[in-house]
Amino acid sequence: MPPYVVALDVGGTSMKGGVVTADGTVAHTESRPTPRPADAAVAAIRAFVADLMTTEPGTPAGIGIVVPGLVTDDAARYSANIGWRDVPAGAFTPPSAAGVPIRLGHDVRTAGLAESVLGTGRDLSDFLFLPIGTGIAGAMIIQDAPYAGATGWAGEIGHIPVFPGGETCACGQTGCLETYASASAIPRRYTHKTGIPATTAEVIAAAPTDPAAQEVWTDALEALSLALATYTLLLDPAAIIVGGGLSQAGETLLTPLRPRLSSRLTFRPAPPLHTSSLGPHAGMLGAALLAWQASETDTWHPPDVPPPPMVS
Amino acid sequence: MPPYVVALDVGGTSMKGGVVTADGTVAHTESRPTPRPADAAVAAIRAFVADLMTTEPGTPAGIGIVVPGLVTDDAARYSANIGWRDVPAGAFTPPSAAGVPIRLGHDVRTAGLAESVLGTGRDLSDFLFLPIGTGIAGAMIIQDAPYAGATGWAGEIGHIPVFPGGETCACGQTGCLETYASASAIPRRYTHKTGIPATTAEVIAAAPTDPAAQEVWTDALEALSLALATYTLLLDPAAIIVGGGLSQAGETLLTPLRPRLSSRLTFRPAPPLHTSSLGPHAGMLGAALLAWQASETDTWHPPDVPPPPMVS
Repeated sequence: MPPYVVALDVGGTSMKGGVVTADGTVAHTESRPTPRPADAAVAAIRAFVADLMTTEPGTPAGIGIVVPGLVTDDAARYSANIGWRDVPAGAFTPPSAAGVPIRLGHDVRTAGLAESVLGTGRDLSDFLFLPIGTGIAGAMIIQDAPYAGATGWAGEIGHIPVFPGGETCACGQTGCLETYASASAIPRRYTHKTGIPATTAEVIAAAPTDPAAQEVWTDALEALSLALATYTLLLDPAAIIVGGGLSQAGETLLTPLRPRLSSRLTFRPAPPLHTSSLGPHAGMLGAALLAWQASETDTWHPPDVPPPPMVS
Repeated sequence: MPPYVVALDVGGTSMKGGVVTADGTVAHTESRPTPRPADAAVAAIRAFVADLMTTEPGTPAGIGIVVPGLVTDDAARYSANIGWRDVPAGAFTPPSAAGVPIRLGHDVRTAGLAESVLGTGRDLSDFLFLPIGTGIAGAMIIQDAPYAGATGWAGEIGHIPVFPGGETCACGQTGCLETYASASAIPRRYTHKTGIPATTAEVIAAAPTDPAAQEVWTDALEALSLALATYTLLLDPAAIIVGGGLSQAGETLLTPLRPRLSSRLTFRPAPPLHTSSLGPHAGMLGAALLAWQASETDTWHPPDVPPPPMVS
């Protein structure tokens, strides 16, 4: 067995684990629910790491774990979603991992790192990776690295006020991007208008013929075009790469979004819009990159790994 | 005479020139109008540099010139305002400056550089410098350096759509920050409402008692709070430093702006708001920093120069 790392992408509802070998192959991947309360989540992560380690002989070269909220290399500082505060990295690893280097990372920024090393952004030094799922946050890649800001709070594009005085967001503010354009906002707003339950894909599919679906989808596109125009004017990215659940809509999303974005930019061109080539694996692959970085081995040279990822 | 540099801040209406010695002292400073068309502006810059050089014996260690628009280290690529395209740095210097190293820079980003080295931002690695004058643009200091984006267009915060569908901006878009909050927008909007000519300072002073002035000033504060909340959510700056003409309002601007900004941020604190300590000299002092960088002498160590600037 060649050297390998254990990688874990911890989300609010589920965790995606992987065993990644030195040539970039994902030898094993598995998903599990993220339990509550926070103590149970920490214990479940520890057990998941232990189980992933048993899928290969020998000990891993490193362990990478990405989590939501505020996080440093060696501690999960805060997550409103999972409910923890100041969990040291060591609490996430089982006794069998004693001595194995570990690195923590922010879920969205680390997914952006994976996009920049392995994915659609691999030839770009400055871009936005925008996963649109139940929430919306951005990984701002600036000069080849994810940017965390002065205090670790950068990239909260989901809460910029695109429609001031608009609908109330879970964050307490009004008119946030996420309230109109997330993969959970679209069905929620449709059902609120019509009383009819629907999935995001159903609302998008119905937009050409159903006025309520049309209105919800148009609002989502307008909110996204305002947010992306704002991002472009501030940060001048070389591209915007959309990921997360909504990116599965592909050109159904990007084709109407491109002219809307361009129409909001009068004195400069719009950056190209793409969908992520890593899809839902971006966070876990990014965690593997962190694990290889933590291992301080030069076994793997991620920029040389041919994309798209070789997921088994 | 100790080593000195020649520094020039070229604006759309006027140019500010300076001779800056090795201990950071501004030995001479002078303003001149910026003529048109573009050829006349280039000739006027060349003559200004020649005249500044004659104020001190010997040749300068370097020349720094900052200009609006798109610019690289060695050419002014484009300015809609002045009207030039692709002017090489050498066109800005007189024959007497042959052999003197020259560096060009972007006016706003270079003023931000001066704020980060000499001014209010000198202890901060990540902040926004926001000069509010006849227009609004931002210098985004990221990890101790001004950030230009992928194509040199970063920082156009004056044109982010704070009130979608709002008033039409000179750029052709609607609802831009600059249309509500620039030092020229405030008197223009007041006069449009009332037919009464007024200066920015007069509108601000009248706001407590004159309903039209109150409305214009409130719109400006609202527009700024929306733009700064958006910047904070995206970039998580350690501080926001306001410069330009409107910063002369000082706490009259910042005191009402702070609670408005905080109220738009629910899950994170607002960064502190300050006014620039360099005032209208920021661009020229930044040009001097570029000139010292171009000189490749280690005569001057700008971070060691005690702020505020010692302008003679």
